[in-house]
Amino acid sequence: MLQFTDIQAAAARLKGVAHRTPALTSQTLNDMLGAQVFMKAENLQRMGAFKFRGGYNSVNVLTDAQRARGVVAFSSGNHAQAVALAARLHGCKATIVMPHDAPALKLAATRGYGAEVIIYDRYKEDRAAIATALVEERGAALIPPFDHLPVMAGQGTAALELIEDVGPLDALIVCAGGGGFLSGCTVAAKHLLPNIEVFGAEPERGNDMQQSLRAGKIVSIEVPRTICDGQQTQAVGKHPFEVIQALVTDVFAVPDPATVEAMRFAFERMKVVLEPSGANALAALMQNKKRFEGKRVGITLSGGNIGIDRFIALMTGVEPVD
Amino acid sequence: MLQFTDIQAAAARLKGVAHRTPALTSQTLNDMLGAQVFMKAENLQRMGAFKFRGGYNSVNVLTDAQRARGVVAFSSGNHAQAVALAARLHGCKATIVMPHDAPALKLAATRGYGAEVIIYDRYKEDRAAIATALVEERGAALIPPFDHLPVMAGQGTAALELIEDVGPLDALIVCAGGGGFLSGCTVAAKHLLPNIEVFGAEPERGNDMQQSLRAGKIVSIEVPRTICDGQQTQAVGKHPFEVIQALVTDVFAVPDPATVEAMRFAFERMKVVLEPSGANALAALMQNKKRFEGKRVGITLSGGNIGIDRFIALMTGVEPVD
Repeated sequence: MLQFTDIQAAAARLKGVAHRTPALTSQTLNDMLGAQVFMKAENLQRMGAFKFRGGYNSVNVLTDAQRARGVVAFSSGNHAQAVALAARLHGCKATIVMPHDAPALKLAATRGYGAEVIIYDRYKEDRAAIATALVEERGAALIPPFDHLPVMAGQGTAALELIEDVGPLDALIVCAGGGGFLSGCTVAAKHLLPNIEVFGAEPERGNDMQQSLRAGKIVSIEVPRTICDGQQTQAVGKHPFEVIQALVTDVFAVPDPATVEAMRFAFERMKVVLEPSGANALAALMQNKKRFEGKRVGITLSGGNIGIDRFIALMTGVEPVD
Repeated sequence: MLQFTDIQAAAARLKGVAHRTPALTSQTLNDMLGAQVFMKAENLQRMGAFKFRGGYNSVNVLTDAQRARGVVAFSSGNHAQAVALAARLHGCKATIVMPHDAPALKLAATRGYGAEVIIYDRYKEDRAAIATALVEERGAALIPPFDHLPVMAGQGTAALELIEDVGPLDALIVCAGGGGFLSGCTVAAKHLLPNIEVFGAEPERGNDMQQSLRAGKIVSIEVPRTICDGQQTQAVGKHPFEVIQALVTDVFAVPDPATVEAMRFAFERMKVVLEPSGANALAALMQNKKRFEGKRVGITLSGGNIGIDRFIALMTGVEPVD
């Protein structure tokens, strides 16, 4: 299982490379909720999401010989950009396998970091098989998006920094997809504050982690239909689940309209941009006011990679949210 | 003239009350400009703009007896909210004189901080006369928006913090309206770094400060037609101009479309929300790339108080920008 010392080692590797993102506070939010809230602004992280932490740590732990053969990732989202940027910073080659319908902005950003992008047809080809073939042909190292200890350790540095910066917390709510971020943050938080309660937050229509935690085993679902494009995972990873089952109190399933309201609050009151999957934890907190009254609560603002066009579509109802 | 010791004293008063806002960096921006840019994110300040610094300092320097008689300000914008919040934090009464057509959001926010709002007709009544009458009737202390040493000293703490946090800079660009922010930041920066070049940035259609600096005397203009609602001042203040004339290198006049592009860049690449008057300095930097190549440049992101509806109107051209 992931250990706190892994996270400390990752923090040392990330020092001076990742941004030490601020812990934002809002008196308006505190007054609304009757709680003291500290928000780890990972939307202000390099490449716009916490994923940089895990991607960089994973490339950094490779040997020089491994890095010389390059790294491979398959992702349509923030993990692609994280691995691409991490590889560039290490002077090694990254190959990213992305679906043919990935957003142009994300394709451009990944190529902008110098990665080779291999496009596959989401409906006809198996991305894992393509990546495996690349690994075998080139001897490249595969960097999985969440079910990978160096990724989990890197993500956990966010909670480590938050607690170092703001002191004791009664609770921590973390945005959750495959569980890399939640498991890393949980190990860090529980080591530093054994009595803290840690919660995940995921879209209601993709509540596989909530189901898994309650069933005591990993439950797989169909690709969920949700606006939260960073949390369309079908099942939590094995390594993350080991941590989550042991140490996480509960997982909140957040309806998409509540996530949109959290994005709106973040824009108008906190002046920060959140992508849908970056706003779940804030939405979960707002929806569960009673549970956190009078408490010191940490939450993650996990990412801000959304174009203005899509932001407008979500705020005006042009992209349906239900 | 404003002294550095005034700014140090203001910094001591603001410690633990104002947010120490982060200095944001963007590798994308650095690569675009060939410079190293450090952005003081005052949009993340309490009430969403640097104005809190000057408002709080001005209320704090009053005697208990003065505060017991309350404070008065006239403003349709961020200064109103700053004084209202500062008064609440000191447990004293604030009366804010606002025009009848002030945005509902700003009226609501000012009342939300517990201030009494007095509405006047912008076209029929003289707001200065109304405020003066209040001062005389109630014995309240008037807090002017920029032409006031305690306001200027408070605003200057932003540059003090920026330089403390990021080290030496070759240049600093500050958003400028009446000159309170620019003059305060200039005194701080020039004291700490005597060789730094300091610049103002104002809307092209409201370039009274540029005209004043070049003419060597204060030039007044008609209320400028610009999207930058925080910079529709008709003339720089006397106390700020004393500093600006002595120590500022130049003032950039920024066309509104460039300001909109800077707001777009801030949203999509930096994940932060800027109001038009908060984006001038970034726009000025982007428009004057050659001048700052190879340099370490500080800029202010001075405020983020814009509703989603107006942001969308500016981004989609529904509110004309020309």
